[in-house]
Amino acid sequence: MGRWEPDAAGRLREAAMALYAEHGYDGTTVAEIADRAGVTARTFFRHFADKREVLFAGSELLEQLMVKALADAPADATPMEAVAAAVLASAEFFDDIRREYSRRRQGVINATPELRERELIKMAALTSALTKGLLERGVAPDVAPLAAETGVAVFRVSFERWISDPDGEPIVDIIRSTLKTLKALSGLTA
Amino acid sequence: MGRWEPDAAGRLREAAMALYAEHGYDGTTVAEIADRAGVTARTFFRHFADKREVLFAGSELLEQLMVKALADAPADATPMEAVAAAVLASAEFFDDIRREYSRRRQGVINATPELRERELIKMAALTSALTKGLLERGVAPDVAPLAAETGVAVFRVSFERWISDPDGEPIVDIIRSTLKTLKALSGLTA
Repeated sequence: MGRWEPDAAGRLREAAMALYAEHGYDGTTVAEIADRAGVTARTFFRHFADKREVLFAGSELLEQLMVKALADAPADATPMEAVAAAVLASAEFFDDIRREYSRRRQGVINATPELRERELIKMAALTSALTKGLLERGVAPDVAPLAAETGVAVFRVSFERWISDPDGEPIVDIIRSTLKTLKALSGLTA
Repeated sequence: MGRWEPDAAGRLREAAMALYAEHGYDGTTVAEIADRAGVTARTFFRHFADKREVLFAGSELLEQLMVKALADAPADATPMEAVAAAVLASAEFFDDIRREYSRRRQGVINATPELRERELIKMAALTSALTKGLLERGVAPDVAPLAAETGVAVFRVSFERWISDPDGEPIVDIIRSTLKTLKALSGLTA
């Protein structure tokens, strides 16, 4: 592995995705992924804990990005403005080069119950992290969890639209539009 | 099992909860639950598929209640009013007699990763069911999933407050207050 073979992680990811699509997630082994990427299993394990983490390794980065944006929001931002800043920060992660990969990744996840569960757990962890961040900003304990849950809802819905969007709208625009929809929605009278 | 032993399901539920608290979920068997409830394993399996379903058997009923309330909301209700009606309907399920049981149940779930996952899956199923119900009401495809996600967020946050509420406020009041918080929250400027 030298400068002639850059980005082993990226090639492993591509190889995994192709094999998951061909043989299913359960029907694919780490050895096959490494082989397809032209690296050894040892190299695989330098980058990923297991074949599931090929798909989820980015989630921590996404969470960090969002938590940081929440913390960096102006001190006088409302809870929902701070959450909106966090969700908008996810656009750094989901640039347009990533859309096709994200779409294929979601297809694999939707087809595999174990992976769907894993994704739900990651989203629950993201909600907890945002709740914690809001409490640290001084947001009231009866407001913080709702603001965090609502933010994650905006993120999920926007992400779904982004990967299935035929117009190729950037995710940042979709998030802005989802936030507007939320605002309109909650003019409820209950 | 005659009229002298009413509600085997209720006794099995109580027995399971006591054993999960004493020995943990993983450390409890169906045979032990049946034994504690004074019934046979066969009776257990007439009521529940396995020891996990003792905790989750009510979830379908809750989902049905909420979906029905959504469908029954007035034709001119806004999407969020219909979702609010669905969430408020959960109060039929969570009457105050159920609060202590719900609190203990949540303790068992929080202590067991497998059960936490199961709960996340049930919540995801609830979100899908509400999305479907909203689409059937004619709500636009770019609004329905967000309204459903937001409704489930309101439900989750309200439920958490209800089981940990020292004042013993009924869940219906907590839901109303959470809906108000949501309305205030989403006055965002993004």
